[in-house]
Amino acid sequence: MSQRTTVRRLPDKQVLGRPALNAVLDAGLVAHVGIVDDGRPYVLPCGYARDRDRLLLHGSTASRLFRTLAAGASGCITVTLLDGLVLARSAFESSMQYRSAVVLGTGSPVDSAGKAAALRVLGDRLLPGRWEHIRPPSHKELAATLVVAVPLTEWSVKIADGPPDDCPGDLARRVWAGVLPIREVFGPPVPAPNLDPALPVPEHVQRLTSR
Amino acid sequence: MSQRTTVRRLPDKQVLGRPALNAVLDAGLVAHVGIVDDGRPYVLPCGYARDRDRLLLHGSTASRLFRTLAAGASGCITVTLLDGLVLARSAFESSMQYRSAVVLGTGSPVDSAGKAAALRVLGDRLLPGRWEHIRPPSHKELAATLVVAVPLTEWSVKIADGPPDDCPGDLARRVWAGVLPIREVFGPPVPAPNLDPALPVPEHVQRLTSR
Repeated sequence: MSQRTTVRRLPDKQVLGRPALNAVLDAGLVAHVGIVDDGRPYVLPCGYARDRDRLLLHGSTASRLFRTLAAGASGCITVTLLDGLVLARSAFESSMQYRSAVVLGTGSPVDSAGKAAALRVLGDRLLPGRWEHIRPPSHKELAATLVVAVPLTEWSVKIADGPPDDCPGDLARRVWAGVLPIREVFGPPVPAPNLDPALPVPEHVQRLTSR
Repeated sequence: MSQRTTVRRLPDKQVLGRPALNAVLDAGLVAHVGIVDDGRPYVLPCGYARDRDRLLLHGSTASRLFRTLAAGASGCITVTLLDGLVLARSAFESSMQYRSAVVLGTGSPVDSAGKAAALRVLGDRLLPGRWEHIRPPSHKELAATLVVAVPLTEWSVKIADGPPDDCPGDLARRVWAGVLPIREVFGPPVPAPNLDPALPVPEHVQRLTSR
């Protein structure tokens, strides 16, 4: 943890230790990636995957975000999991339960020798068990894809998972207080319009919908 | 729409028109807010609300992010709603369904005369119908809170909501393809440990859990 990643606001919510970072990163599907372009911030959503001690992001070679990151610009990659609404007896203490990870670092492009393996890591993250059933990237597709790696060296994790923290003077208020949990769920799979109806929903998809 | 907010990547996914922007902003709960500090990007999750033609964000007067925004720095506020996994027959076409809004602009602090009303807009967004039941902010709490407004003048919206777009050569692959929808749901309310068990779950909370 560096000075830049010491949490200044609500420091009691900071969680140290790589297991906490890995848990947040491995639970999310979308990261918000920030770069500076012409002195101004840009934040875009990206798919990502943790590959041991680095984050992998992939995008088009035509993407400004990815070209900027691959050129070694500073990036900030933030993953947030919203876990609930914290309904306190006061407006001031009403808040959210969340887990968030902020990774700071400069990106470097994954070279062509490592790109196919990196895309497989990304694919396995999106839907475990599917990669072996689908067509892997062609040479042309690989050439059109930038994979950027950001090392997990400078980061912070914050977790807000407690009940409402009302001040003693508010406890006598006759209003329900507590947490309204939020979670992401998968709905029933929707077949592609051009899918042969004889093809069953595979186990790697069914597994997610029955969670 | 300015040159800066013309979508360059996958421009067919760009949606023009304020109703689309409003719909995305009004459906989300968490924004990812980017600023530049010392030349580097920082992205943090924030609660937010749309208030007609501006976005409201609130945080502590002790927060670097909020102090920077309130001082008139450039910000990028991105709201992303993840709607599904797009499971194509190729790795290259596998992707996600999402709606995202990117708002660019400089923040300005909401002055003390408007702060209480702005916090009510934020509270009503978090949980409609709750504000009248809880204690409104005290003078001390108002003084500890920064509310920043960002005008909705420079923005873009992207929506990816289609089925897998496999190339003709992949259609013969014998693998299920389609979309696995994702949605956020509220779980059963969890009472605060110090709640009087005689207090019922109010209608404004029940309404959300039964959606």
